[in-house]
Amino acid sequence: MIRLPKITASQLLPCLSWAREYNRDMALKDGLAAVIVTLMLIPQSLAYAMLAGLPPVIGLYASILPLIAYALFGTSRALAVGPVAVVSLMTGAILMPLFPAGSAEYVQAAMLMAMLSGLILIGMSLLRLGFLVNFLSHPVVSGFVTASGILITLGQLRHILGIKAGGDTAFELLASTLEGLGATNLPTLLIGLGSIAFLYLARKQGKSFLEAIGLSTGAAANLSRAAPVLALVVTAALVAWLNLAEAGVPVVGQVPTGLPSLQLPTFDLALIYQLLPGAVLISLVGFMESVSVAQTFAARRRQRIHPNQELSALGSANIASAISGGMPVTGGFSRSVVSFEAGAQTPLAGALSALGIGVTVMFFTPLFESLPRAVLAATIIVAVLTLVDLRAIGRTWKYSRQDGLALIATLVGVLVVGVETGIILGLALSLLLFLWRTSKPHMAVVGQLPGSQHFRNEERFHVVQSPHVLTVRVDESLYFPNARYLEDRIAALVESHPGIDALVLMCPGVNLIDASALESLEAINERLGTAGITLHLSEVKGPVMDQLHKSHLLQQLTGNVYLSQYEAMAALDPETTQRTLATKAEACAKKQPMEEQQS
Amino acid sequence: MIRLPKITASQLLPCLSWAREYNRDMALKDGLAAVIVTLMLIPQSLAYAMLAGLPPVIGLYASILPLIAYALFGTSRALAVGPVAVVSLMTGAILMPLFPAGSAEYVQAAMLMAMLSGLILIGMSLLRLGFLVNFLSHPVVSGFVTASGILITLGQLRHILGIKAGGDTAFELLASTLEGLGATNLPTLLIGLGSIAFLYLARKQGKSFLEAIGLSTGAAANLSRAAPVLALVVTAALVAWLNLAEAGVPVVGQVPTGLPSLQLPTFDLALIYQLLPGAVLISLVGFMESVSVAQTFAARRRQRIHPNQELSALGSANIASAISGGMPVTGGFSRSVVSFEAGAQTPLAGALSALGIGVTVMFFTPLFESLPRAVLAATIIVAVLTLVDLRAIGRTWKYSRQDGLALIATLVGVLVVGVETGIILGLALSLLLFLWRTSKPHMAVVGQLPGSQHFRNEERFHVVQSPHVLTVRVDESLYFPNARYLEDRIAALVESHPGIDALVLMCPGVNLIDASALESLEAINERLGTAGITLHLSEVKGPVMDQLHKSHLLQQLTGNVYLSQYEAMAALDPETTQRTLATKAEACAKKQPMEEQQS
Repeated sequence: MIRLPKITASQLLPCLSWAREYNRDMALKDGLAAVIVTLMLIPQSLAYAMLAGLPPVIGLYASILPLIAYALFGTSRALAVGPVAVVSLMTGAILMPLFPAGSAEYVQAAMLMAMLSGLILIGMSLLRLGFLVNFLSHPVVSGFVTASGILITLGQLRHILGIKAGGDTAFELLASTLEGLGATNLPTLLIGLGSIAFLYLARKQGKSFLEAIGLSTGAAANLSRAAPVLALVVTAALVAWLNLAEAGVPVVGQVPTGLPSLQLPTFDLALIYQLLPGAVLISLVGFMESVSVAQTFAARRRQRIHPNQELSALGSANIASAISGGMPVTGGFSRSVVSFEAGAQTPLAGALSALGIGVTVMFFTPLFESLPRAVLAATIIVAVLTLVDLRAIGRTWKYSRQDGLALIATLVGVLVVGVETGIILGLALSLLLFLWRTSKPHMAVVGQLPGSQHFRNEERFHVVQSPHVLTVRVDESLYFPNARYLEDRIAALVESHPGIDALVLMCPGVNLIDASALESLEAINERLGTAGITLHLSEVKGPVMDQLHKSHLLQQLTGNVYLSQYEAMAALDPETTQRTLATKAEACAKKQPMEEQQS
Repeated sequence: MIRLPKITASQLLPCLSWAREYNRDMALKDGLAAVIVTLMLIPQSLAYAMLAGLPPVIGLYASILPLIAYALFGTSRALAVGPVAVVSLMTGAILMPLFPAGSAEYVQAAMLMAMLSGLILIGMSLLRLGFLVNFLSHPVVSGFVTASGILITLGQLRHILGIKAGGDTAFELLASTLEGLGATNLPTLLIGLGSIAFLYLARKQGKSFLEAIGLSTGAAANLSRAAPVLALVVTAALVAWLNLAEAGVPVVGQVPTGLPSLQLPTFDLALIYQLLPGAVLISLVGFMESVSVAQTFAARRRQRIHPNQELSALGSANIASAISGGMPVTGGFSRSVVSFEAGAQTPLAGALSALGIGVTVMFFTPLFESLPRAVLAATIIVAVLTLVDLRAIGRTWKYSRQDGLALIATLVGVLVVGVETGIILGLALSLLLFLWRTSKPHMAVVGQLPGSQHFRNEERFHVVQSPHVLTVRVDESLYFPNARYLEDRIAALVESHPGIDALVLMCPGVNLIDASALESLEAINERLGTAGITLHLSEVKGPVMDQLHKSHLLQQLTGNVYLSQYEAMAALDPETTQRTLATKAEACAKKQPMEEQQS
């Protein structure tokens, strides 16, 4: 059941498949995309490292080797990996309670977290466990992402205000920020609010403004992506020029110059044990985000990504991050959009961006010394507020109460209790509500439509019933969540139809019968038998019949298996069936909105 | 979604419904059944209390008030409640690590456990959480029951040998029993083996032997049930006569005479916290056993039990047990068979048995003083060995690998690690395998059968495909476990059919579309749109359509919703469809065993 994948060279290294057809035109396009993505990655990487409680330069380290690893192993031609908001938030949420933010142990733990996440992802790939990501139902993800956006924004307010504050939950963050409000640093606040306003305007109006002053659409789009870099340069210059760091404006400060040294993170078993549950969640969330981004872009070009290969590619990227002083990474949506729209042709664009970041780390880190943290916080806030989608709550609730409940539970859980607890709460509730929902499948007593060989729900159609044969149609696969409900429903139906001597289970909607349901069918067969009622099956699907042949049910069955419901009734009650067939067909729907014709 | 049940008097007290029609004939039958059940309950109650590590008399206490409570609140007319093997084993497994077996704290904890179990069952009834029992899939229960039978037998060997031994797992029990083998007490061993042989023969041959010596079939059946009581009387007399207690034969010893005093168990919050997970499992397992026993008997008389009412009845029985110095109870299979076959008409038979046990406790406990523990152990072993069903492993494995795996995991888990861990392991694996299985639903590319309006799987039939419209039939509800798989499969199909400009999702087997699947459909719709392919739906079921109307999918859909697949193709590719319809029908199945005609 669990097989190791068969491997070909181009499956292991998907880059081989595009490297053969690589040409000059593709290289030019990749190069341009790389420049634009680099300009975008610098502020994002610095900001998301800060969000994870790490020194900003760690974010740059995590944007070099991981990009190269993904270019080698990834299947998506547009996906851009690196530190992203949600994963950085989770990293921070897991590490903050363990070590002082930014300390050497903290940095080591972040590397270890990236390593664990990488190993988990590769392990999932080898064991073909990619389907585990399906546990993260859409309502859980939606609630989590919105809650993350709110939590991240609340957590960044302190940088905008230039005060000290902290906390794990929304309440703690809010209380601690309000408490520190008196110590607000005015120059910091001005830089922060100014940056937010500028970045917001640039995001909303930047492109049309640039077009209005005469740039071409493409150039305007590309140039407007550079707004965050512009904000960084301007604010850093301002701080340096006015000596604002001495006026209490928190800055990034001295940053080591040069590429990170390659080293394995310290393997501390006790720490690994502590980090493991969080690493599993980070891996799942990161993989899910990455895969859905990659699928979106692949579809636009009628290409395809391979989820299992993506697992090992993301795993490699995280291991690459871990050994080069980085942090957990995954594919990000906004940077992939930029890369795609800037015309990236192959994953080589990502590798070229890595080169750009490498050059930055080698030569330009002194420029970051005067960079105010407030401008990085502004970058984060403007980016993550787009994640907050409060209307999704109402929309999901309206579509389905169960899904709405799972969304709200996750949202409130993440905000009020914590990131991990919130996700686990949502997951557990999703599963429970799912089981609850499938535990009571739709079943209909069916009868014959006059003048036809068709059998329909007696509640929706004027149908003819045999006086001594009852037919029940089950509209769901039969498996353990509903096996006992089936027993109970059949018992109730038999009680309310005292005159019958045969019962037909009509199974066109049964896609699976598992061992629990088989046991229930055997029990039903036996119980009906003791009450003098024979049990028959009709319209059993091929694969289900194949499986039933492996059991003793068909031998024990007191009745027969019929290919069609009509054959069953023609055999069990020929008189009523023939008479009904001969009856002139009339308008037979009781109440039948157009869409309900099928049931 | 969660509603409190509407209550009528006869729902609250189902006894009201049979009390009205009660007559002398029913009373006589109930009385006879009560005598037979009482004779059977005495040895069983003593034995199962010992199995749970409790003084044997506790088992008798747990067979008085609980039977009366169930008679008042239960819906099954045959179910006999009291201490049963599996629940007693679980009680012992949970309490043994906490307190010395048989100590006053141990007895108090058992009462508290019954109270918790009662409150949990009533809570489940009020919140209509009876469906939770569906978590216990058949393979998990089967593995658990077989493992329990083995564990219980291993645990009772020490009583047969008259040695001291113990342990939580099969290995520990075996090792500790082997270690103590040297200290075997010969008279005990003789009593133990003799009792096992006698009880086994009585069970297998007793009835036919009694018939052979001239008794009527009914009398022979009833009398053979009294074999355990005969074994008790004979061995106790033997021990008293030969003064074997002084020769080292462990006996029950002095037992307090008189009815138990009514008192609440001590509510110790820390202890409650420790016992709670176990109490939840005991409640679920006990409820499940009880409900399936009750359903089996109700069906024979075309009656019906109400699972939700059963929850509160069992809950009341456990609370009654808790306040009368008892232990966790549930409905037992063998005693219910006896009660049913002895002709019990109403739950009053149970109440009369309670009277019988009450009389026993008031007057006959001095008789138990010389009762050898070995004969009780023999009673347990002969009863539980029928639970061990090793052939179920092969049968389940053959039927389905996934179900077989869940069974084996539970079996091994319970034997090697422990009762609770084993069940939880099996549960988790069942869920995981279930999600894994439904995460990749069967999908078929369908085409038109020549000369018909029918569309079938192109892999099984010779069908005609439109050159530019692709139709995919999904044979499963769409929900979060398979939502992303759907996206992936559609992407793969679109990649392998480059010429298409329309895709039809044929949904006759889709019983549900949850919010995650809705999101996936919206994503598929958008992605296909960017690739210039319209998305259409056909044969969507009524309830699913109703729900889709609550979303924006139908407005956003690039294509249409068609009532039938034929209508869809007639609109999207009229030329091919009409031509195929006009083609003479031929033998069109590619390979088609009789059973596969449906798919």
